[in-house]
Amino acid sequence: MMNNLTWHTTTITKPQRAAIKNQKPCVLWLTGLSGSGKSTLANALERELFARGIHTYLLDGDNVRMGLNKDLDFDNYARIENIRRVGEVCKLFVDSGLIVISAFISPFASDRALARALVEQNEFIEIFINTPLAVCERRDPKGLYKKARKSEIANFSGITSPYEIPNAPEICLDGCASLECNTESVLTYLSKQGYIYAAQH
Amino acid sequence: MMNNLTWHTTTITKPQRAAIKNQKPCVLWLTGLSGSGKSTLANALERELFARGIHTYLLDGDNVRMGLNKDLDFDNYARIENIRRVGEVCKLFVDSGLIVISAFISPFASDRALARALVEQNEFIEIFINTPLAVCERRDPKGLYKKARKSEIANFSGITSPYEIPNAPEICLDGCASLECNTESVLTYLSKQGYIYAAQH
Repeated sequence: MMNNLTWHTTTITKPQRAAIKNQKPCVLWLTGLSGSGKSTLANALERELFARGIHTYLLDGDNVRMGLNKDLDFDNYARIENIRRVGEVCKLFVDSGLIVISAFISPFASDRALARALVEQNEFIEIFINTPLAVCERRDPKGLYKKARKSEIANFSGITSPYEIPNAPEICLDGCASLECNTESVLTYLSKQGYIYAAQH
Repeated sequence: MMNNLTWHTTTITKPQRAAIKNQKPCVLWLTGLSGSGKSTLANALERELFARGIHTYLLDGDNVRMGLNKDLDFDNYARIENIRRVGEVCKLFVDSGLIVISAFISPFASDRALARALVEQNEFIEIFINTPLAVCERRDPKGLYKKARKSEIANFSGITSPYEIPNAPEICLDGCASLECNTESVLTYLSKQGYIYAAQH
């Protein structure tokens, strides 16, 4: 079975891993306030990309905070370390050839810059979901704003901790626009920039 | 373009992500002493799996210790935390549909049990590379045994810290056998157990 193999010392590279998936790996880094619509958009993106045969993975609080980062609480050190680790895991997924979607508030510009610096220049697509604080607070899907206003949660982005607005995101979305519209904006960007190709199924 | 979409609330699942890759995701958890041949086997496995169209990713000291785990040193806490994080990242990669190969000494049975418990029962394939300490020490590819013997490195598995031999690994390999032979053993296991299918290219 393996008699005619040549044993190269080279390892399998990122371009090779991406090639068998017929896509250009990158990070879709969603940032925005709690309630801005990150998770909803992330899931919609993953569904649409999957439907096009694209190999993706979604990192969010559900699969990171309860696993890899379960040792971290919510003080300043922990919030920075949380995003640092997410950035490093994004890098590994990009290296594996996938398009990885991360959906974290990531309120600090310096943390986002760090995550960006971990991958190559055209591999980081910062997507700012620009939803006014008042709208996010009215939606309050998890009741967190209510708790933050009562000081039951410390360091809450937009209330008791700053959210630093991205000044040059690759994509800026209106968080009050429809999900369909925002999803299409991202897909169009990915298609025009050559991250994904025509439908494969 | 997206007018006729139905917006499901469901998310894309692990079986769906695995299906477009035509494989059954799992962790190939290589364990063994320093110099036992983990990295060499890991790279050979990745090359052979890649040649069969399998989507893989390799986690090792090179891409983990310098990135995600660069905040950790080599004391007991850090060594346990190192393996915990590797286990959590393996879980994410399995969730993404890939076959992930991890190549770390992972000397403690409890740490390996923890990594195993993170994924489903048939997703963890422990591969013990059984290479006698004397052979590893003679190979000493990085000169680490020499340093450990001179007490220049603390907590060195097999010398100043225990290596706990796996008592029920899915695969046990003779570290003195040929690389071709050991690689074929693993591929045969994966094929027989239905993790990979016939050649796809």
